[in-house]
Amino acid sequence: MQERAARTRRALVQAAASEFDRYGYAGTSLVQVCKTAGITTGALTFHFRSKSELADAVQAEGCTAIRRVVEHFARGHSPALERLVELTLSLARLLEDETAVRSAARLTRERPANDLGWASCWLPAVGELAYRAQRTGQLRAGTQPAAVAHLAAYLLVGAEMRVRTSLQAAREPDAVKQLEQMWNLALRGIMP
Amino acid sequence: MQERAARTRRALVQAAASEFDRYGYAGTSLVQVCKTAGITTGALTFHFRSKSELADAVQAEGCTAIRRVVEHFARGHSPALERLVELTLSLARLLEDETAVRSAARLTRERPANDLGWASCWLPAVGELAYRAQRTGQLRAGTQPAAVAHLAAYLLVGAEMRVRTSLQAAREPDAVKQLEQMWNLALRGIMP
Repeated sequence: MQERAARTRRALVQAAASEFDRYGYAGTSLVQVCKTAGITTGALTFHFRSKSELADAVQAEGCTAIRRVVEHFARGHSPALERLVELTLSLARLLEDETAVRSAARLTRERPANDLGWASCWLPAVGELAYRAQRTGQLRAGTQPAAVAHLAAYLLVGAEMRVRTSLQAAREPDAVKQLEQMWNLALRGIMP
Repeated sequence: MQERAARTRRALVQAAASEFDRYGYAGTSLVQVCKTAGITTGALTFHFRSKSELADAVQAEGCTAIRRVVEHFARGHSPALERLVELTLSLARLLEDETAVRSAARLTRERPANDLGWASCWLPAVGELAYRAQRTGQLRAGTQPAAVAHLAAYLLVGAEMRVRTSLQAAREPDAVKQLEQMWNLALRGIMP
């Protein structure tokens, strides 16, 4: 019985992630979420009291996927700047592949008054790696670690939009490849 | 009489720009647009037959402001790479200052099936400047002009999001300043 409830909850979160990702917070209809999930609106209200609670669950799901990737690169042994770049490429890959992650990124923009912002799941790790890169002499003199972290954040927003444009046009996403090119350009200016 | 109609139309477009910018295409209510503009819904439907037509008008207004800036930098005499950077900084300033421009950027994402995408108002000029930079020896050997144009596009999306975050938090926008920092990092890698 409990297992069935958990299954229903997962189906609802999955369907909601897809709807929020496509239509945004305001544009998502709970009736449509139920239809997509094949679940009655009664079952929905048993699990989530409001659209807001459902969006929280989607953002939490996205953050869980992100944290797995972040932990992998935070713990690695390769040079910090390399790990920083690899982390952003992996996040771009998550944006391409994981609806919940893409949905979390969109919901962050459209629901400012919540603590589950998707950047808060990875930006601290990127900042930490940028400082470590500086301490280990990987940054050119005068390059601020905070500026490198900002650059990573700007590029990831760009990658998210690139993924959206590709999906809307039913093209294969190429955000990871493009992001790699951006880093190739920028790294030559960042490194000593 | 004609002048009064033009004034009403302008007030509607201005109010709509503000609502679309804040609440997105799906989240904007035409009733609220009329309230904000101080105009009856009857007058609205006289000028615009649908939400879609109203959004077209907002996007066209945003594009007009952008084109003025683009023409200025396309015609300039300073080195092309410098003009490319200055153009993106001016676009970031428009994102900070002009609701119609910010609104056009948001509507571009939320109404994919329209030809008024805000990037189409400036991306060709950025691409042209990147190619000119290459022809005049301003790019490091192996740096593709298309990659520089992509980088500009990614950074501008980042700038837009930065402006939104600042506005939502009622902070003074600092996107232009941040964008300048990003270019300082990246340009050292792009130039010979």
